[in-house]
Amino acid sequence: MEKKISTAVVRRLPRYYRYLSELLENGIDRISSQELSRAMNVTASQIRQDFNNFGGFGQQGYGYSVEVLKEEIGRILGLDQQFRVIILGAGNLGQALAGYGGFARRGFIMSALFDVNPEKIGQKVGDLVVRDMKDLARYVRENTVHIAALTLPKAKAPEVAKTLTDMGVHAFWNFAATDLKLPSDAVVENVHLAESLMRLSYNIVNQSRDE
Amino acid sequence: MEKKISTAVVRRLPRYYRYLSELLENGIDRISSQELSRAMNVTASQIRQDFNNFGGFGQQGYGYSVEVLKEEIGRILGLDQQFRVIILGAGNLGQALAGYGGFARRGFIMSALFDVNPEKIGQKVGDLVVRDMKDLARYVRENTVHIAALTLPKAKAPEVAKTLTDMGVHAFWNFAATDLKLPSDAVVENVHLAESLMRLSYNIVNQSRDE
Repeated sequence: MEKKISTAVVRRLPRYYRYLSELLENGIDRISSQELSRAMNVTASQIRQDFNNFGGFGQQGYGYSVEVLKEEIGRILGLDQQFRVIILGAGNLGQALAGYGGFARRGFIMSALFDVNPEKIGQKVGDLVVRDMKDLARYVRENTVHIAALTLPKAKAPEVAKTLTDMGVHAFWNFAATDLKLPSDAVVENVHLAESLMRLSYNIVNQSRDE
Repeated sequence: MEKKISTAVVRRLPRYYRYLSELLENGIDRISSQELSRAMNVTASQIRQDFNNFGGFGQQGYGYSVEVLKEEIGRILGLDQQFRVIILGAGNLGQALAGYGGFARRGFIMSALFDVNPEKIGQKVGDLVVRDMKDLARYVRENTVHIAALTLPKAKAPEVAKTLTDMGVHAFWNFAATDLKLPSDAVVENVHLAESLMRLSYNIVNQSRDE
């Protein structure tokens, strides 16, 4: 339907969405690309270029309708749909994902949480009860699962991901410090926290070198 | 000292570092750019280009020394130094950061954890005891703090970041769903989980549109 959009644009879209949500919450219902540019600290021409990938969203002389723009970008991001997410690993990070209410507002329903640790199985985490990893296959057979969030040790993650793809789960939110080797129709979003911290230290070290 | 390196290269460096660490753990001490390319699923020419930013690391006919390469990239990333990190917010996410041993191995010492919640203050999280946010100023005066990790609600994060910059902390690992407005000498690495999830849903939706 739409032409192929560059990764860089896709990386920026959620940020536009977040800003537009904040504007709406603050009662602002029209905005020019100049104003949006100042608020988001990107150039107005970048914004117009990004939006032109999707037909430009019909800016008028007096700017964009914040609500229409938010809705359009939300639709492009798939936020007009619901995604059922299971979390593999009920450690602190898995629990943080399970407990964060902000995801459900965007249509991401944290629907089950699994662990292998007998001490964790059966415990309540927010609205969920930690399930036994042994019951994963049955759960996936009996329930719709759109996304698997992997908060597992890196030694375990590839094996669990493989099992899940065999069961028909094709989207992974991967927090394990390893790259998953998956079939080409799988989609993966990696959150490598140690790498994020290294980019920060790079910038710290590099900045002091400049001084 | 070094010329200005593009953000894209900086984004890739930690991944090189991770792969090289894994190779060493597996007893591999020499690798060609072709082999590294296959393992990491990037082109060999990309790897050579990236490394040429730093003088090329002296590849010989028979490839790179994994240990030398890892050490050089580690040094560029600042991993030959230690960074003391304080965590603001002792929720599940803050606790996950405090408890993850992998950071210390890279030189990131999680040295204190703060919260405003009286029920959390005084509790043990791994090796740390949750401190009262009221004691933050004194802690920063009396201890070296290189990085502040913000796992606070988005309404609180900007104010706490401002306080910290006033106290001389200039590097932020920001998990709050907001962009911090900081002095130009501050460095920020954002981890916006909701945006990461939206990129995943974009790719899910877009892939099924292609079919």
